[in-house]
Amino acid sequence: MAPTAAKKGILERLDSGEVVIGDGSFLITLEKRGYVKAGLWTPEVVVEHPDAVRQLHMEFLRAGANVMQTFTFSASEEKLESKYFEIAEEAVWAVEVLKESGKPVAATMCIGPEGDKNGVTPGECAVKLVKAGASIVGVNCRFGPGVSLKTMKLMKEGLHAAGLKAHLMVQSLGFHTPDCGKGGFVDLPEYPFGLEPRTATRWDIQKYAREAYNLGVRYIGGCCGFEPYHIRAIAEELVPERGFWPPASEKHGSSWGSGLNMHTKPWIRARARREYWENLLPASGRPFCPSLSKPDF
Amino acid sequence: MAPTAAKKGILERLDSGEVVIGDGSFLITLEKRGYVKAGLWTPEVVVEHPDAVRQLHMEFLRAGANVMQTFTFSASEEKLESKYFEIAEEAVWAVEVLKESGKPVAATMCIGPEGDKNGVTPGECAVKLVKAGASIVGVNCRFGPGVSLKTMKLMKEGLHAAGLKAHLMVQSLGFHTPDCGKGGFVDLPEYPFGLEPRTATRWDIQKYAREAYNLGVRYIGGCCGFEPYHIRAIAEELVPERGFWPPASEKHGSSWGSGLNMHTKPWIRARARREYWENLLPASGRPFCPSLSKPDF
Amino acid sequence: MAPTAAKKGILERLDSGEVVIGDGSFLITLEKRGYVKAGLWTPEVVVEHPDAVRQLHMEFLRAGANVMQTFTFSASEEKLESKYFEIAEEAVWAVEVLKESGKPVAATMCIGPEGDKNGVTPGECAVKLVKAGASIVGVNCRFGPGVSLKTMKLMKEGLHAAGLKAHLMVQSLGFHTPDCGKGGFVDLPEYPFGLEPRTATRWDIQKYAREAYNLGVRYIGGCCGFEPYHIRAIAEELVPERGFWPPASEKHGSSWGSGLNMHTKPWIRARARREYWENLLPASGRPFCPSLSKPDF
Amino acid sequence: MAPTAAKKGILERLDSGEVVIGDGSFLITLEKRGYVKAGLWTPEVVVEHPDAVRQLHMEFLRAGANVMQTFTFSASEEKLESKYFEIAEEAVWAVEVLKESGKPVAATMCIGPEGDKNGVTPGECAVKLVKAGASIVGVNCRFGPGVSLKTMKLMKEGLHAAGLKAHLMVQSLGFHTPDCGKGGFVDLPEYPFGLEPRTATRWDIQKYAREAYNLGVRYIGGCCGFEPYHIRAIAEELVPERGFWPPASEKHGSSWGSGLNMHTKPWIRARARREYWENLLPASGRPFCPSLSKPDF
Repeated sequence: MAPTAAKKGILERLDSGEVVIGDGSFLITLEKRGYVKAGLWTPEVVVEHPDAVRQLHMEFLRAGANVMQTFTFSASEEKLESKYFEIAEEAVWAVEVLKESGKPVAATMCIGPEGDKNGVTPGECAVKLVKAGASIVGVNCRFGPGVSLKTMKLMKEGLHAAGLKAHLMVQSLGFHTPDCGKGGFVDLPEYPFGLEPRTATRWDIQKYAREAYNLGVRYIGGCCGFEPYHIRAIAEELVPERGFWPPASEKHGSSWGSGLNMHTKPWIRARARREYWENLLPASGRPFCPSLSKPDF
Repeated sequence: MAPTAAKKGILERLDSGEVVIGDGSFLITLEKRGYVKAGLWTPEVVVEHPDAVRQLHMEFLRAGANVMQTFTFSASEEKLESKYFEIAEEAVWAVEVLKESGKPVAATMCIGPEGDKNGVTPGECAVKLVKAGASIVGVNCRFGPGVSLKTMKLMKEGLHAAGLKAHLMVQSLGFHTPDCGKGGFVDLPEYPFGLEPRTATRWDIQKYAREAYNLGVRYIGGCCGFEPYHIRAIAEELVPERGFWPPASEKHGSSWGSGLNMHTKPWIRARARREYWENLLPASGRPFCPSLSKPDF
Repeated sequence: MAPTAAKKGILERLDSGEVVIGDGSFLITLEKRGYVKAGLWTPEVVVEHPDAVRQLHMEFLRAGANVMQTFTFSASEEKLESKYFEIAEEAVWAVEVLKESGKPVAATMCIGPEGDKNGVTPGECAVKLVKAGASIVGVNCRFGPGVSLKTMKLMKEGLHAAGLKAHLMVQSLGFHTPDCGKGGFVDLPEYPFGLEPRTATRWDIQKYAREAYNLGVRYIGGCCGFEPYHIRAIAEELVPERGFWPPASEKHGSSWGSGLNMHTKPWIRARARREYWENLLPASGRPFCPSLSKPDF
Repeated sequence: MAPTAAKKGILERLDSGEVVIGDGSFLITLEKRGYVKAGLWTPEVVVEHPDAVRQLHMEFLRAGANVMQTFTFSASEEKLESKYFEIAEEAVWAVEVLKESGKPVAATMCIGPEGDKNGVTPGECAVKLVKAGASIVGVNCRFGPGVSLKTMKLMKEGLHAAGLKAHLMVQSLGFHTPDCGKGGFVDLPEYPFGLEPRTATRWDIQKYAREAYNLGVRYIGGCCGFEPYHIRAIAEELVPERGFWPPASEKHGSSWGSGLNMHTKPWIRARARREYWENLLPASGRPFCPSLSKPDF
């Protein structure tokens, strides 16, 4: 653990070369726990069931999140922020503005590698956000781990081509969406009640964390579908870089699958190693279902 | 809601023709929340993080569970119970004894349709448990919804052939396991860290609840992988029979997918109906993975 | 080559311990070549396009077939044969009676491991055929390689239990049908114009030939979907037992994948070995399609 | 039938607005019939087994092919042709030059939508071929129906942008390859002995023919994996445009699945209509296999 870590701000940390780990899914996770209604996804759970929200916050912190996003929709009038919203309006899809002590520090878009419906590419989008004042830019929601990293690569290239600099941030879905179009997972026929077979494993997320890091992304978190153990997977993958384990690793262990070591069945003990899980091709258990869908739009 | 429901015992309820809804997954769910270590699955979370356990209990109750199983492993010396354990020892796999006010009322086995490794069939197993004194018999854990119901059918037939009567109980996994062998899901290569693509949707569980009911099963719950929204799916499917909605349905609605009605995109509004979700064949989003696995044993 | 092989009769060969290799698919193969109409599958091609039939016969012989089945439907009144047809009538599905010089030598049924629609099991069926006078019994058509061998195992056990002896014969489909019911592939929704993704590879058939041989089956051939190269795969797998290669192996080579050795791309040369093809899990290239179907009946 | 059709040359036909139907697969088809060795795919079968070659030619002609490609590899020194080969050399992969009465009329490339390994795009490639004198340009081999049509679209756009005109020609594989890279199907792990699950159905090819026609392609044929019934599917789809049926349609019928009409089982008769086959999602019968592969290169 890094007891003093909590005292620094996000920008300060990123400027000093640290990796910041974001939190995960609130609305979709609390929907499954029975506290949020799918569809409009409004956050009245904060007043109706504050204990349930607090419990989930605790789980993300234990998993290694450095950031605790307040669970609200912004209605700020602040100048810088409205600039982001103008960009968002152009782009059709929401921008997420991350504020710290009331001050905007990061702006992320729900955009995929093919760009938005107005033809704005990820590179152009990143440039716009930085020119509007954002120090940290990236993507959140709508696309799965692999697709989100493709977008990040294009954003990075766009910034480089424009001679601009910014910290990079990614908050992918916890669902695989190789088959979605420009609109992301909401256009897939499985949204929102049939996404289960697409859920990422912890090993998928370790891979995502490593690839994001290698791409230069230093704020790495998740969005819809990202459960606490997914956030822990980011923190565990980046132990060599960060130098410490998250609290919840006391229930996961310092090596892949530790805890299976002592199983009574030898073929289960044989699974207690990183190579096993890295190479596993997990079956869906659904032989009558396809592996990809066509988006509805 | 049925405010007086809590006052009756399980047997009393079943004898009077009520449906009893069980609770769901504790160990696997709390592992994903960061509080339990996979492998030996020991329940020290009860003392280490009682808030996390209490929160999950609340979620299952809100979802409609009538039963709150204490989260312990029994070490009782009581005579009736040790009889069950003798059967369990024969069968290799654990028997789960459900007690109410210290008195055993139900005995369930981790057994699939092919029987146990000693050649005991589900029918023989049910007969043994009833002859040992159990009033409620059935299965728990190890097998998914479809496979568990096949076992229940065989247990029912076995009891009928032996001229015995008992209440039937099922607590399936929240994972699809059409490909597992006698040992159940622990022998699948995905156990325990790659089971995500097998996770049941809420609609899969509504189907399970209906089929269990039609088979004559009146204690219907879940085991590993059964999240609160899965328990709610049982309660919602059986509203016509039970006459009331579970509390958490306030966040789910009285018809399939209500809440999507008001979505801004028309193709998402079009998903707000039972037929849509009943007929959906959800994709895995994993085209490089198979749909079935070969068990390791 | 075994120049004198052609002079012995089938029974004589089997009695002396030889393996007999049957031929493959006529109707479905000639349908794809443009000479037979799907549906009633009548064999007028024999008079309309004898060259096309002769060419296919040549291909099977080159591939290693020892038997050249005449391409007709029997209308014989012979006593022994009508006995088989009575059994067939009981079983709903056709019996195929293989005659040599006008004399019946083999009787095979279109039956799967679950038995026929009247409840006759494969074991009972084999016993009936032997009691009716057949020296060679087995299965043909309707089921794929894996399923057909399961039936053969049950026939063998049935004969053993009845204290009877007969030569065993298998002529599986060239299509995989793990998902078919009692009626076989005609009840699958893909029959007859969408079976392509189920086509066996040559390596699937080598495995089939080896497993059939290990089970004690000594007449090994194919039915619908069995192309000449599938028959060659049987002959090549059984070279150690039979001592010679079929003529068409001059275009296939004495080891798995020989001929790829000289490819200009090293990653293709790397495929020139048996282990590569044995372990390949071939993709369907159809991510929007399921891997199994539900039979229509 | 169009008895006088054979008398016109290809260019003459295309110039007059006719659709020309090419032939299909020789090497891979004759390999499965036992006459060609996989790997170098040399065409000595022409001298070794001329009857087998002649039979296959007959089948393609019966299926509706207007063109009978000589089954040789060109070694011509002719000036125009060597220009194409220079382009081919740049592009790494072979150009196929179709000659009529010794005169080059068409030049096609083995190129996919991503272009060749030197960065030449399909559009640039089409422009080069036309500038080198080709009247008909397009693609052959290496890529499946869907991918080949994507390339054709890019070629068409490239020619349009350059202000050039040419007839368009497509000869796709008879295998689905949505997952291949720049090198096409030879880089897929299934090449060449495990491609069976990727085989197109006749209905896939009718769709391909229609889409090619709608794109403006007027020379439509096939390459490796294209069996006679695939060529017939092109001819049948284009009956409204061409005004006549191919000879082999006498064994297929004037409507989709005709011939199933008279089947004894009602659920099979129900398949005798175009909508059934158009909407079928054919299963692979291989639940342990993936639906896509990663190319080896």
